Amino acid sequence: MLPHERSGSMRALVRRRDGALDSFAPDALVVEEPLEIRVREGEESEPVRLLVTMRTPGHDEDLVAGILFSGGVVEAAGELGDLARPSDPRIAPELARNVVIATVASRPGGPRLSARRSETVTSACGVCGESSIERVAELASAARRRAGETEREGPVVSGGLLSALPDALRREQAVFSSTGGLHAAGLFEADGTPVVVREDVGRHNATDKAIGALLRKKRPIPPILLVSGRLGFEIAQKAALAGVRILCSVSAPTSLAVELAEETGMTVVGFLRGERFNVYSHPARIRGEG
Amino acid sequence: MLPHERSGSMRALVRRRDGALDSFAPDALVVEEPLEIRVREGEESEPVRLLVTMRTPGHDEDLVAGILFSGGVVEAAGELGDLARPSDPRIAPELARNVVIATVASRPGGPRLSARRSETVTSACGVCGESSIERVAELASAARRRAGETEREGPVVSGGLLSALPDALRREQAVFSSTGGLHAAGLFEADGTPVVVREDVGRHNATDKAIGALLRKKRPIPPILLVSGRLGFEIAQKAALAGVRILCSVSAPTSLAVELAEETGMTVVGFLRGERFNVYSHPARIRGEG
Repeated sequence: MLPHERSGSMRALVRRRDGALDSFAPDALVVEEPLEIRVREGEESEPVRLLVTMRTPGHDEDLVAGILFSGGVVEAAGELGDLARPSDPRIAPELARNVVIATVASRPGGPRLSARRSETVTSACGVCGESSIERVAELASAARRRAGETEREGPVVSGGLLSALPDALRREQAVFSSTGGLHAAGLFEADGTPVVVREDVGRHNATDKAIGALLRKKRPIPPILLVSGRLGFEIAQKAALAGVRILCSVSAPTSLAVELAEETGMTVVGFLRGERFNVYSHPARIRGEG
Repeated sequence: MLPHERSGSMRALVRRRDGALDSFAPDALVVEEPLEIRVREGEESEPVRLLVTMRTPGHDEDLVAGILFSGGVVEAAGELGDLARPSDPRIAPELARNVVIATVASRPGGPRLSARRSETVTSACGVCGESSIERVAELASAARRRAGETEREGPVVSGGLLSALPDALRREQAVFSSTGGLHAAGLFEADGTPVVVREDVGRHNATDKAIGALLRKKRPIPPILLVSGRLGFEIAQKAALAGVRILCSVSAPTSLAVELAEETGMTVVGFLRGERFNVYSHPARIRGEG
């Protein structure tokens, strides 16, 4: 086993250069570790294992809040209670740091946790744990219904404002990151002000961390989300559920992400690089000038 | 909804260039659609929904075979039976193309499907559906036991051979791909000959498709796997279970991928670009010269 740090794992390695193998100074590896999420309904009930996901350690509580929200286990910040580490001394410290126990409000008229759990979609796997294509349509429909509340809302921003976002994301990343190479997700106000930036080895996790950070603070989700990697259905789904209006990626969106955005009223901006970008849905929110 | 093709989805969009917005010629979007996997034990039993995963359509049966193998639902090619589309005429064609029904051999002494299912890890989510960190250790241990069978096996290859693999992967991709931008996974013989290359919007899916393609043909898994993106735990896990000995990525491996590779006897090669690469585990399989 390698020695671990929270931000990067150092180890010796071999490098090939100019046709020869040399031993190489220790390099930082991006840390990936499993995180187990346990959930209980109310303070009294026993925690139930919900899922295990791989993640880069750091901002674990934000990640858990985001996953519980993206998965429908909590539908609003008010349903999210305490997020704690296991206190059982029989659990080894190196395992305890990879476990978060979430307390969520019980729903008197709603599904019990077992039902919530079977409905859960996870950060890393979209409809995994789900079992039907109909469920995807249902989730998209639920996202539409939420989006319907704000269908005609959302800012109109200039192209110049969007073009400045990737640099802003990287500046915020530089504050946190020592290893580099991590995916990032940032939420921005309509005037381009960064509100929260989170990183993870997984794009989905970075998005869940950013959304979860604000959920925990009971702050509203700002209208603009920028992700550093490809924009697929799952991230579009998270964004739609959170009420994001302008969803940006430095890379390509997929067909299903664009379809979901069209149906839920989101503007999708792809290949956001320097002064150029493409708009794939609801372009009326982007002004050409400025 | 957008018109779909199997390989790419075309749509009009808006592009920003030189500070102005213009309408832009239709561009190809990478297609992402859900695939539902149903499994039945033997010809007689009713199919049970196992999971839904997002994927790029194409080589769906390879993907299903790979997921069933990576997830432990089938442990050998001989357990994999028919892979069919639903024949029920009440299922709309656009849904039927996103469903595969797999018949797997029943295990008289082994777990029934319900038990297999609860043990399943999926292509897109590693230990999702699983519920404990202990399970990760158990999977790694199972991988070690399998690897133990071939611990001292596996080829010794030259650095030059490895350096030629990315170009070979891209050449094979060009045969299949029209949209570009897809992740790829390729399996290679010890002399560098490509055996199978598969693509998908998801790296995990591309790996499952490549492994599944050979499983369906009951062909042995060659010793070298090259993936086009980052190398995380889940891909290392799939490779270890399949018996890959040299696991290469054009990008960075994570800490947990390297740990798993160390414990299961795999050589991990990262940042395989041109004539340079890094070796993170078991470097004795790589010769410097040649």
